[in-house]
Amino acid sequence: MNFELLAEEGGARRGRLRTAHGVVDTPAFMPVGTQATVKALTPQEVHELGAQVLLANTYHLALRPGAERIARLGGLHRFMGWDGAILTDSGGFQVFSLDHLVKVSDDGAIFRSHLDGSEQRFTPESVMAIQRELGSDIAMAFDQPVSWPATGATARAAMERTHQWAARCLTAEAAPGQLRFGIVQGGFDEELRRESAEVLGQLAFDGFGVGGLSLGEPKTVTYRLLSLQTAILPRERPRYLMGVGTPADLVEAIARGIDMFDCVLPTRIARNGSILTRGGRINLRNRQFIEDAGPPDEGCDCYTCQRFSRAYLRHLFIAGEILGHRLASIHNLRMLVRLVGEIRQAIGGGALAATITSLREQWALAPLP
Amino acid sequence: MNFELLAEEGGARRGRLRTAHGVVDTPAFMPVGTQATVKALTPQEVHELGAQVLLANTYHLALRPGAERIARLGGLHRFMGWDGAILTDSGGFQVFSLDHLVKVSDDGAIFRSHLDGSEQRFTPESVMAIQRELGSDIAMAFDQPVSWPATGATARAAMERTHQWAARCLTAEAAPGQLRFGIVQGGFDEELRRESAEVLGQLAFDGFGVGGLSLGEPKTVTYRLLSLQTAILPRERPRYLMGVGTPADLVEAIARGIDMFDCVLPTRIARNGSILTRGGRINLRNRQFIEDAGPPDEGCDCYTCQRFSRAYLRHLFIAGEILGHRLASIHNLRMLVRLVGEIRQAIGGGALAATITSLREQWALAPLP
Repeated sequence: MNFELLAEEGGARRGRLRTAHGVVDTPAFMPVGTQATVKALTPQEVHELGAQVLLANTYHLALRPGAERIARLGGLHRFMGWDGAILTDSGGFQVFSLDHLVKVSDDGAIFRSHLDGSEQRFTPESVMAIQRELGSDIAMAFDQPVSWPATGATARAAMERTHQWAARCLTAEAAPGQLRFGIVQGGFDEELRRESAEVLGQLAFDGFGVGGLSLGEPKTVTYRLLSLQTAILPRERPRYLMGVGTPADLVEAIARGIDMFDCVLPTRIARNGSILTRGGRINLRNRQFIEDAGPPDEGCDCYTCQRFSRAYLRHLFIAGEILGHRLASIHNLRMLVRLVGEIRQAIGGGALAATITSLREQWALAPLP
Repeated sequence: MNFELLAEEGGARRGRLRTAHGVVDTPAFMPVGTQATVKALTPQEVHELGAQVLLANTYHLALRPGAERIARLGGLHRFMGWDGAILTDSGGFQVFSLDHLVKVSDDGAIFRSHLDGSEQRFTPESVMAIQRELGSDIAMAFDQPVSWPATGATARAAMERTHQWAARCLTAEAAPGQLRFGIVQGGFDEELRRESAEVLGQLAFDGFGVGGLSLGEPKTVTYRLLSLQTAILPRERPRYLMGVGTPADLVEAIARGIDMFDCVLPTRIARNGSILTRGGRINLRNRQFIEDAGPPDEGCDCYTCQRFSRAYLRHLFIAGEILGHRLASIHNLRMLVRLVGEIRQAIGGGALAATITSLREQWALAPLP
């Protein structure tokens, strides 16, 4: 088995996922490197902030610079200079976010490139072939998410298609050592979500993504549907909650049995001057920080917080200097990697509930149903 | 003396400048950190590429975030997290580049901020006070450059004012350990350039900037005027050619007795995908590099060239990713720091002429008059 469960406490799990590019200690937060770069950071910086795995995107890389090209250049790891693990998203989410342009059939999806309007076709088989060429460590199955609030019939049709596509993905050849994760869907309906976890859980995937959540529905709905599915998915395989990653979400989802996360939030908000701190989210462009000599986040061990003041970061953002985006990205990613690491260490120690309660208080979260 | 001449060969000099923040081996190339950041780089990266001194800008920092504010935050070194030497330009060049808005008198210059249109006043005394507050290691005197082609009368008036201002700068209090450099001017007239070097050379500056060159005049004029002035300026004090920094310029100016350089070129062209290589300048956005697996510059020891391909950098630029700008900046700065270091090591070894000839060939330069 590639995944080893080391401890369980409450609903939370501590584990170890073996990939062709190293071990991933779970729960794990994966920085997002959509276009083969974690925005504004070098691979060395991503490594130094403690990440063992990052996410890249099949849709974006297939369109530019092209998967065959990356293969000829030695594969994605070599191309982007990252020797840790890489999970590639299947592109399902991206394709169906362009829903005004996409034509879906049981065969696959035909859509127009957001870059040049050219017609493109993704099928379960082609998406797995792209991921084989990229040489990622974890390939995601091609899926069809639905947006909130989708009706029952729409959600069912998309779910059933996702299930058929999942089976086809498993018949495709993988890269050497490449793991394959299925994606459960089911819209916002409890029955469908249960059914999807049951059907997918029967298939020979190495792990499972929980897709189609946090698309606009209330958080209580997100967490209820999530709990339903993690209760059904095979215990001995890893679960990855796709695209979700506020500090509050991480805490709640780990408590509900999630092992892996990705989210663009930390790098996206960094671009505008926002940082995540133990006291909540702050925007460093705010005038109140103009002469604040303190570190961006007291007690943080990242390069940014060890070396620079809030006043300096504010200056960089106001002056439009790229270094501001860089330094805030380093901090925000380190913050989430460290938060997840803290919970990971607590799992199995017998005091996880206290850790969760303390984190909920820190992040001003009420316990959720 | 703060400056020690270690060797001379032909017109070139090898030396050592002692500052309050470490030794600067000369000839030296100074990366430009106009707004208290070398664009897109951390201080650690600037250090790793071998720079011992960087340049920051009085004009920009006085307007934003303000010199008094930086002083309250512990001075410029602490503010920007750089513990090497800092030279601050006086702002003369910036103020007089806004010439449609500036009113000059013997007292100083009144101009409008490019940020908010507010009226500002710089005098020799105020500019030295700003640099004292910033706590730079080398403060430049306030000067009035003229643009090409300036008439004799305009150039003389600006030169004479520059000389009067220089004397006033010397009466102002410096920060502890702060060195002060005068700036020679004289437009594009040989007699004025000689006179300026003679007058300034009499004053008790720790070194001299050669200002007002490379402003549009032919290169032959630049180098002739430069040679005239370095022949007159006191041998035992360092000379800094301001704002000049193509590889060709560095080679030619060192051969004419220049010890220090700054230029925005390496970081500015990096933003658009251009890099300096031993084979000349190339733009990595060019389609010819789309599958080029080789390093950006064969034989370069920088982080970028050690780790990434031309194809990857091209992808980053085409995809609009900040990492491209970063990686190209690291390479371009390392390239110039290394080029200057190579010449420095050759000075005094008896074979400098051969080194210069070989570099001229490498950079496809004809010897200049």
